[in-house]
Amino acid sequence: MVSLPPLHRLLYEPLLRRALEEDLGRAGDLTSDSIAPPDLEVEASIVARSGGRVAGLQVAADAFKLLDPGSVTELHCPDGVDAAPGQTVALIRGKARAILSVERTALNLLARMCGIATTTRDVVAAIDGTAARVTCTRKTTPGLRLLEKYAVRAGGGFNHRFGLDDAVLIKDNHRALAGGVREAVERVRRQVGHLVKVEVEVDTLAELEELLGLDVDAVLLDNMRVDLLKEAVAMVRGRLVTEASGGLTPDTAREVAATGVDLLSLGWLTHSVKALDVSLDLAV
Amino acid sequence: MVSLPPLHRLLYEPLLRRALEEDLGRAGDLTSDSIAPPDLEVEASIVARSGGRVAGLQVAADAFKLLDPGSVTELHCPDGVDAAPGQTVALIRGKARAILSVERTALNLLARMCGIATTTRDVVAAIDGTAARVTCTRKTTPGLRLLEKYAVRAGGGFNHRFGLDDAVLIKDNHRALAGGVREAVERVRRQVGHLVKVEVEVDTLAELEELLGLDVDAVLLDNMRVDLLKEAVAMVRGRLVTEASGGLTPDTAREVAATGVDLLSLGWLTHSVKALDVSLDLAV
Amino acid sequence: MVSLPPLHRLLYEPLLRRALEEDLGRAGDLTSDSIAPPDLEVEASIVARSGGRVAGLQVAADAFKLLDPGSVTELHCPDGVDAAPGQTVALIRGKARAILSVERTALNLLARMCGIATTTRDVVAAIDGTAARVTCTRKTTPGLRLLEKYAVRAGGGFNHRFGLDDAVLIKDNHRALAGGVREAVERVRRQVGHLVKVEVEVDTLAELEELLGLDVDAVLLDNMRVDLLKEAVAMVRGRLVTEASGGLTPDTAREVAATGVDLLSLGWLTHSVKALDVSLDLAV
Amino acid sequence: MVSLPPLHRLLYEPLLRRALEEDLGRAGDLTSDSIAPPDLEVEASIVARSGGRVAGLQVAADAFKLLDPGSVTELHCPDGVDAAPGQTVALIRGKARAILSVERTALNLLARMCGIATTTRDVVAAIDGTAARVTCTRKTTPGLRLLEKYAVRAGGGFNHRFGLDDAVLIKDNHRALAGGVREAVERVRRQVGHLVKVEVEVDTLAELEELLGLDVDAVLLDNMRVDLLKEAVAMVRGRLVTEASGGLTPDTAREVAATGVDLLSLGWLTHSVKALDVSLDLAV
Amino acid sequence: MVSLPPLHRLLYEPLLRRALEEDLGRAGDLTSDSIAPPDLEVEASIVARSGGRVAGLQVAADAFKLLDPGSVTELHCPDGVDAAPGQTVALIRGKARAILSVERTALNLLARMCGIATTTRDVVAAIDGTAARVTCTRKTTPGLRLLEKYAVRAGGGFNHRFGLDDAVLIKDNHRALAGGVREAVERVRRQVGHLVKVEVEVDTLAELEELLGLDVDAVLLDNMRVDLLKEAVAMVRGRLVTEASGGLTPDTAREVAATGVDLLSLGWLTHSVKALDVSLDLAV
Amino acid sequence: MVSLPPLHRLLYEPLLRRALEEDLGRAGDLTSDSIAPPDLEVEASIVARSGGRVAGLQVAADAFKLLDPGSVTELHCPDGVDAAPGQTVALIRGKARAILSVERTALNLLARMCGIATTTRDVVAAIDGTAARVTCTRKTTPGLRLLEKYAVRAGGGFNHRFGLDDAVLIKDNHRALAGGVREAVERVRRQVGHLVKVEVEVDTLAELEELLGLDVDAVLLDNMRVDLLKEAVAMVRGRLVTEASGGLTPDTAREVAATGVDLLSLGWLTHSVKALDVSLDLAV
Repeated sequence: MVSLPPLHRLLYEPLLRRALEEDLGRAGDLTSDSIAPPDLEVEASIVARSGGRVAGLQVAADAFKLLDPGSVTELHCPDGVDAAPGQTVALIRGKARAILSVERTALNLLARMCGIATTTRDVVAAIDGTAARVTCTRKTTPGLRLLEKYAVRAGGGFNHRFGLDDAVLIKDNHRALAGGVREAVERVRRQVGHLVKVEVEVDTLAELEELLGLDVDAVLLDNMRVDLLKEAVAMVRGRLVTEASGGLTPDTAREVAATGVDLLSLGWLTHSVKALDVSLDLAV
Repeated sequence: MVSLPPLHRLLYEPLLRRALEEDLGRAGDLTSDSIAPPDLEVEASIVARSGGRVAGLQVAADAFKLLDPGSVTELHCPDGVDAAPGQTVALIRGKARAILSVERTALNLLARMCGIATTTRDVVAAIDGTAARVTCTRKTTPGLRLLEKYAVRAGGGFNHRFGLDDAVLIKDNHRALAGGVREAVERVRRQVGHLVKVEVEVDTLAELEELLGLDVDAVLLDNMRVDLLKEAVAMVRGRLVTEASGGLTPDTAREVAATGVDLLSLGWLTHSVKALDVSLDLAV
Repeated sequence: MVSLPPLHRLLYEPLLRRALEEDLGRAGDLTSDSIAPPDLEVEASIVARSGGRVAGLQVAADAFKLLDPGSVTELHCPDGVDAAPGQTVALIRGKARAILSVERTALNLLARMCGIATTTRDVVAAIDGTAARVTCTRKTTPGLRLLEKYAVRAGGGFNHRFGLDDAVLIKDNHRALAGGVREAVERVRRQVGHLVKVEVEVDTLAELEELLGLDVDAVLLDNMRVDLLKEAVAMVRGRLVTEASGGLTPDTAREVAATGVDLLSLGWLTHSVKALDVSLDLAV
Repeated sequence: MVSLPPLHRLLYEPLLRRALEEDLGRAGDLTSDSIAPPDLEVEASIVARSGGRVAGLQVAADAFKLLDPGSVTELHCPDGVDAAPGQTVALIRGKARAILSVERTALNLLARMCGIATTTRDVVAAIDGTAARVTCTRKTTPGLRLLEKYAVRAGGGFNHRFGLDDAVLIKDNHRALAGGVREAVERVRRQVGHLVKVEVEVDTLAELEELLGLDVDAVLLDNMRVDLLKEAVAMVRGRLVTEASGGLTPDTAREVAATGVDLLSLGWLTHSVKALDVSLDLAV
Repeated sequence: MVSLPPLHRLLYEPLLRRALEEDLGRAGDLTSDSIAPPDLEVEASIVARSGGRVAGLQVAADAFKLLDPGSVTELHCPDGVDAAPGQTVALIRGKARAILSVERTALNLLARMCGIATTTRDVVAAIDGTAARVTCTRKTTPGLRLLEKYAVRAGGGFNHRFGLDDAVLIKDNHRALAGGVREAVERVRRQVGHLVKVEVEVDTLAELEELLGLDVDAVLLDNMRVDLLKEAVAMVRGRLVTEASGGLTPDTAREVAATGVDLLSLGWLTHSVKALDVSLDLAV
Repeated sequence: MVSLPPLHRLLYEPLLRRALEEDLGRAGDLTSDSIAPPDLEVEASIVARSGGRVAGLQVAADAFKLLDPGSVTELHCPDGVDAAPGQTVALIRGKARAILSVERTALNLLARMCGIATTTRDVVAAIDGTAARVTCTRKTTPGLRLLEKYAVRAGGGFNHRFGLDDAVLIKDNHRALAGGVREAVERVRRQVGHLVKVEVEVDTLAELEELLGLDVDAVLLDNMRVDLLKEAVAMVRGRLVTEASGGLTPDTAREVAATGVDLLSLGWLTHSVKALDVSLDLAV
């Protein structure tokens, strides 16, 4: 089984701080600070109203901890596991003022991360039984890539490149600038280190044919019809990792996965997130 | 006519820097730097493939400028205006390497901002002819509130609170903590300055009735049926700003707006963004 | 009674870090580090030599904690309460080196905050028995607004705008740019959200007269003589919040407050602070 | 003649950014952005209403430049020179919106720096003809030390230590911890580099006597009466730099300076600043 | 031929700012600011006294530009090219004060980068004629990896991993934790994306033998004798990239490269840098 | 005996964070996170393979703590003490994943600091019995000055200036700009505070002669032969601190120290560091 990588607080705490500063502004939470007594402690539950795949609970818990270091959060549903509709996924005990002030920021992050995990889970489920993996792209929210890539993992998907510097992906523009794919691949191989993989985007089987003789590791089959994908897989015969991309939806995923491609990549897992409906209920 | 507020580079440049660092990593764009000659200058167009309301073009242009200070961007479609499907909304001239390296970051921001603006525009259009305004909430992406609130404006909507400190919004939890809405309002009024407005969330007409005798400026009618909203508007008789909230969609917006409420607030304008399909085409 | 809002360490800790770095420089405290043994623990008292209203003790305590996480501070006089001359307001136990190194930074902040609180308290006392509130302005020290606005609260005063974005204040320059106050107010109302209040500065009763027909929430009566203020209050008849501003001192405050205005705003509460005389005494 | 050191924008720009962010908040200047047309250019003058010594004009000019890079500021009165009451010290041309939005931040800094420079100038003038220099202390506003030390120079004063790490100052607490001044000095000399000077605070002539045999460079004569100061100067016979400190005012400065001490140090030059009255007038 | 990747100012400017702040401290360059007139412009040359491979000239030039935006630097010897002993590699024109203040910071960076490039060049030259490449490791100076990896490129070497996240390198500790190399590789392959390469460190030929049946891309032959390396290369038969590591020096490099390994990796290229002797000469 | 100054975590933690972010990148440690179970706790020892002077152990320990706050480090050899070859200098207990992820960053810092301390120790030992002190220069790694100056102290050396602002050092360029050393010294004395020492660099005895009549504290005798150094010391007769500089090595240090100079300054202590061989061994 695949386990989740750690999500280091060292790396996401600056984001949490900026998010809380963004919401607290200069004067803080005028409403809660006026109404709740300074030392009142309460318990609150985070509820996954509509149910879905959980991701980011520890991030949410750390948000409360930043404003109220004495707050304690119990996680009732680990990341990567499904919550039933209405299930309480976490319990927080701490100062009423802090919990109310952090609520929106914590939920904004959690709803987004759970939303990505849930959608990914659905696509993964849709291709169950095929050999293909689901992967995301670099179409993530600026500043949140770390969290969104993690959420894809929590949904059962895999991560593509984290950025421009951990692998090579030669696209149409690069090919055109080099004057051909052979020259593009050779330029890359002259420059990069020995632990860098190279993938190339192709639109046609002719382009794929040309690619098969070159020193590349993977091919991105862009916007190809299902019959062409099958033919492409047959041509490649396992010599390259094959990735299907372009316009994939949960509805079409199964058919594409059945072509035998190794990977399905979907930009909308992260660029058009449907937030999960999560709420915070105070036990007053 | 309503004009757009300035979007100060001073305020969003740190976000752009973080976004570019997130994508460039340590080693930069392995692909483009290997393939494109260092001094090659190219022209690229940003195209709104599917058409939609434009927002954030200057932000995108500044992203290119951060990596290539000599790059020049012509904006062909101002923020707040609709682009036709396939329309070129901006032209960039600069180093090929920099344009390719920044492409994804710039498009990630632009697609999100245009997506918000376009959805907002659609809701605004749906209620055309009524007196209601469309407004967003604090359910924004952590770190991007500035840009997302601006995109709502570009779509013809208005901004609700920017944070917890520029107005008071008394919700159920606050009411419960205070032991009643009267006490909650009084606690707030004792604390806050004279330029702070107070809005209260109510779920029933009975709660609204109680509110009418208190020193508040606006009422959030939460998840009320259309017939109750009409009744509520009638009860208020203009003494408070009325805001309808909860589960609104472009489909239901018109009916709700027709009840006479002053405002429709929609969280999904920002929490579940459908990115606009924008692309960058290189003129090689 | 009015209670103090929380002063979140999340928001002021960056300021504390910068302040300590500013004083420690690169080499740290050459004097104390040469003289005090590394593990020596001592007790020190913070004394309000001249007496005054306390504000910012927790901020000072956190400064010591940043350099010596094991240090413990007992607060003997809560913020918002008066200390007698010579009273010990806090006791700190920790490493001698750290206490001596942080002393100046902690006292610089505390002396300023207590100074503001004490002056505010004196003005509040001067108008005791009237219905007016004392408020500060945006004439604060750059970077310290959070702390200075809090100190005004600790002195019994109220906060005006925290910045340019939480309310509208139309001044002479704005009026001139718009070609009149009516146009200025209308331009504002077309743009801003429903939770934004609008105040307008006027210099004469004629200007006030014009204002009364417009959609505004408050009026700033700038540099008006006491007799005119009385007349203004009579004209307004409670329809607007009235704020008297310009050249107010503790000596003139009572007379102005007696005119019936709602607010007295004083820039010098924060722009020309008289630091309170606080010292740190080591029990060697 | 003494000239002013450069005030590097590299060092103060982060402070300017924080100050502008503090005032603009998230939504920016609601008032000016609603009223002034986006492209309107205006001219504004900065006026020293009450007159005084100028310091920090370039800092103010750079604040405007941060929001409107196209703005141009003419400095009419260099730092370190006196402005007459009502004199225009600078002219700014730029976008109306930006000038109005930056006005308060720029004036807050400028008023403080000119206030310090003016007070310093007055003390320097008060001791004109004596050999003594006026110097400030480390009692500066946290985060602004750079600007405030510069303002003292602009007023004709000199700078004492910038922090804890550029010289040694042995105070009562240090002496007590070491068990005597001789031991304190020896501990220091064993540790610090050859370019570090050592000053010792003394309260009595007996303490001064003990000091004369030690390897120190300067003595701080703390809170001594004028007759004792004279005696101290006579005892020292130029072997140490002599600094008088404690409760000095412009009124008492001359008498103290006449005792022959080398330096007068005054904490209140920076800890209790009286802001200069500066304003920005728009030529509408 | 291999060309150098861009070194983005966006990525190294924060480092330059910190370096200048570290040297300027609070008070700036006491010496130069006291002696050089404020507006004096001078010309200075950067001289490679001992000769060597140039790297980082633009970084040095940008350091001067940060303090004096009007300064102009002519680069006379591009990065990646050898400078003769005594050759002027750059000319700077600008304010005397700024050039003197920045001198040490700029030279500290340049001397280190040229030192790395020169040593790398020497190792590359030592193995000329063999098929092996020279590569660096992650033993870089904390905070300077970007610049040091670039300097290795300028010396003709290649870059190994930039960090822990752009490839997998299974070392002894990992193998032990997994209970064997096969299990270690399988755990990795289950988790990582399709564009991640896997390298494994082996100490013996037996370990290498086991590795040949697994899904890995490269093998690090750690501290093996030359005869064993030859045998290892023969065993691998091109199926894996082979990297020799451990105790390599310019003296032993040729012999090792002649074994047929693909890569020589040397930690001391970056962990024990011999700075190049570069100086700044003022044309006074 | 000389004790070590504190190395404040407040001052070096930002550097640690940047260093860890630099190595972890966005995706973290792909290898360790795939292989080690999330909750596995291990013990690891840091071993000084080749032996040497220890410096920076607490810094290394804090690096582990940043990623795993529950990790515990026992320091077995305090900074400033020699470790025998193969000695375990610290034991760490914590999560296996975190220890493996932080290993390289912690060792990179530690190896550098111990390397500086060890080399300094060797030079100090070489001049044992003379009255001279060993001192470093400003030729440090940008961003690491704090740590490198501390390491020199741990090796038994002393610190020269920490930056441009804590003392004056008049070099050839300054002398030339002023038109002579007398004018240079006078310009400086007119500007700087009373706690600033002045050192002047001279190349010849004639220049030294001129210096003796001026108000300076120390002289840097640059690149002088041993016989000239002796003559210089005789001329100075203790009136100035004498510092020999230029091309000093452990081999030549004793001879130079024997001339009677007060200080030997060596740039290569920090600019060309030979890292100590330290390793982390896991007890699996």
